[in-house]
Amino acid sequence: MRACRREPVPFTPIWLMRQAGRYMPEYRDVRARVGFLELCKTPSLAAEVTVTAAERLGVDAAIIFADILLPLEPMGLDLEFMKGDGPVIHNPMRSAADVHRLVELEEVGALEFVLEAIKQTRRALRSDLPLIGFAGAPFTLASYMVEGGGSKTYVQTKSLMYNDSGAWNAMMSLISRALVKYLNAQVEAGAQALQLFDSWVGCLSPDDYQQYVLPHTRSVLAGINRETPVIHFGTGTGELLRLISEAGGNVIGIDWRVRLDNGWERIGHDKAVMGNLDPVALFANRKHLRLQAKTILEQAGGRPGHIFNLGHGILPETPVENVIALVEMVHEMSTQ
Amino acid sequence: MRACRREPVPFTPIWLMRQAGRYMPEYRDVRARVGFLELCKTPSLAAEVTVTAAERLGVDAAIIFADILLPLEPMGLDLEFMKGDGPVIHNPMRSAADVHRLVELEEVGALEFVLEAIKQTRRALRSDLPLIGFAGAPFTLASYMVEGGGSKTYVQTKSLMYNDSGAWNAMMSLISRALVKYLNAQVEAGAQALQLFDSWVGCLSPDDYQQYVLPHTRSVLAGINRETPVIHFGTGTGELLRLISEAGGNVIGIDWRVRLDNGWERIGHDKAVMGNLDPVALFANRKHLRLQAKTILEQAGGRPGHIFNLGHGILPETPVENVIALVEMVHEMSTQ
Repeated sequence: MRACRREPVPFTPIWLMRQAGRYMPEYRDVRARVGFLELCKTPSLAAEVTVTAAERLGVDAAIIFADILLPLEPMGLDLEFMKGDGPVIHNPMRSAADVHRLVELEEVGALEFVLEAIKQTRRALRSDLPLIGFAGAPFTLASYMVEGGGSKTYVQTKSLMYNDSGAWNAMMSLISRALVKYLNAQVEAGAQALQLFDSWVGCLSPDDYQQYVLPHTRSVLAGINRETPVIHFGTGTGELLRLISEAGGNVIGIDWRVRLDNGWERIGHDKAVMGNLDPVALFANRKHLRLQAKTILEQAGGRPGHIFNLGHGILPETPVENVIALVEMVHEMSTQ
Repeated sequence: MRACRREPVPFTPIWLMRQAGRYMPEYRDVRARVGFLELCKTPSLAAEVTVTAAERLGVDAAIIFADILLPLEPMGLDLEFMKGDGPVIHNPMRSAADVHRLVELEEVGALEFVLEAIKQTRRALRSDLPLIGFAGAPFTLASYMVEGGGSKTYVQTKSLMYNDSGAWNAMMSLISRALVKYLNAQVEAGAQALQLFDSWVGCLSPDDYQQYVLPHTRSVLAGINRETPVIHFGTGTGELLRLISEAGGNVIGIDWRVRLDNGWERIGHDKAVMGNLDPVALFANRKHLRLQAKTILEQAGGRPGHIFNLGHGILPETPVENVIALVEMVHEMSTQ
């Protein structure tokens, strides 16, 4: 929490995106019993995997176990997680007519299970560990809604954006209004910080980001309770960091493709940063892992406002012991 | 050719990566009769699709129809193109022992079909249209050899790179030596310019690129006949452009994630550049397509040494008429 506000800290805090995930045996045990969506919708289990991961790893924050696509269901999308294939949306938005069928999220009752998971996690979690809530950013959610799943090229998403900016903006505005309600409800439920995941925004040119995305993301970030620090994250965003920072957020996520010092300079030192180890570095031997972590700490230069994290989520085959070792290394190497 | 050397030109030249490809009915007709690898290995057909695409589109260069993975077969890899799934290598290189089994490419006889296709294309092509030869760069080829196909995360490739730099460097050196022979043979066969595709290098941090990749790519580029202009291309390379330019090449490819003016500045105006329209812009209406093309020409600022191209290959569903319209627009808007 102090790092989010760029206050001095005794050591660099660290947590890891997707820290409660498939690489962890405790998580796989739970998933052997329930499907992914069922896990998200069962607050006691979501709280359990959230707390277990944070305690097992010795990290400095927990992030609520949930999925960025959960708010799509109450907006009228038919969401399914297929085994091995990732999410599929059976009624993707391809036209203005589709967009007009989207449901305005009037209240967040349909996502009560996430709020309940936050409450239960907050009660179970060590009191000095902050709990992070999160949501997908408008562009990243729109890309799933339009493509009907993941994409390599974003042809459908960009085609709608280029060819029917009215429908595009209507969809992005509707998503943005839903996100403001959802994120503020997470804070009320007990989330102490928030992260906005614009994971796939790096597929856009800077001009397209500025024109089609930035105003919507800004409206989400402007709508969030001012007391709550927000981490604004994306991947492949080297050219977008300045614009992403302009859109808002107290902490800007940087991936490993950008050196942390260069990225922070682009963002401006009046904001905190989060990052930026390549998730694959966790497959390297200890010596190499240590060297890579050290390089990042050196690039941060001991400046207040650095939260150590990966540049993207932990990969499924990652050895747990390396994750634990990384947390220890970062604590040790950054202790003043 | 003149743009490669940064000499003044009457209009901005344009060609498009993967211009002979699945989006084109004439190409699909040929593929209805032969498989992908068979097409690559039949010089008369490879020449036919190469020439047809260049003439149909009215572009200013042809690029030989081939695949970057073709040199992997004579190096001992068992390559197959699966319908819909892309390339699969049945014996990927995962360890030093695997790497030691790689076959040094002593001479390029095993790739004679590419050289013969170049000869036939050069004879059939309008004499004022230059013919571009090409190869994959060491990192991108290594990534296929190690992963056994395409990858989202490059876990195996980077793991080998981090954990056994001896095996990594041996593999990269062997690939580099093969590439020098292969590219020079293409020039001898009639290719007037060359392109080195480091398509996936954008997955690396700048430090990793500098340490594990740059020396090898440099050795390839240093080994090529000095008279032949070389285009050095990658995607997601915003942070790498300076290093890529340092590795070599007369023309540096820029993808759409970087503004052309910013990219060119980073590369240095003593080099030519190629790019950088988002391939998805070809799915937009004409007005929008024109606007996007105009923006790129404006960013190039009429400076000699800009070759118009996409930021990556043409996508399979692209409407042919939009590609033709783009070529006309670029010629018209850039005519002095």
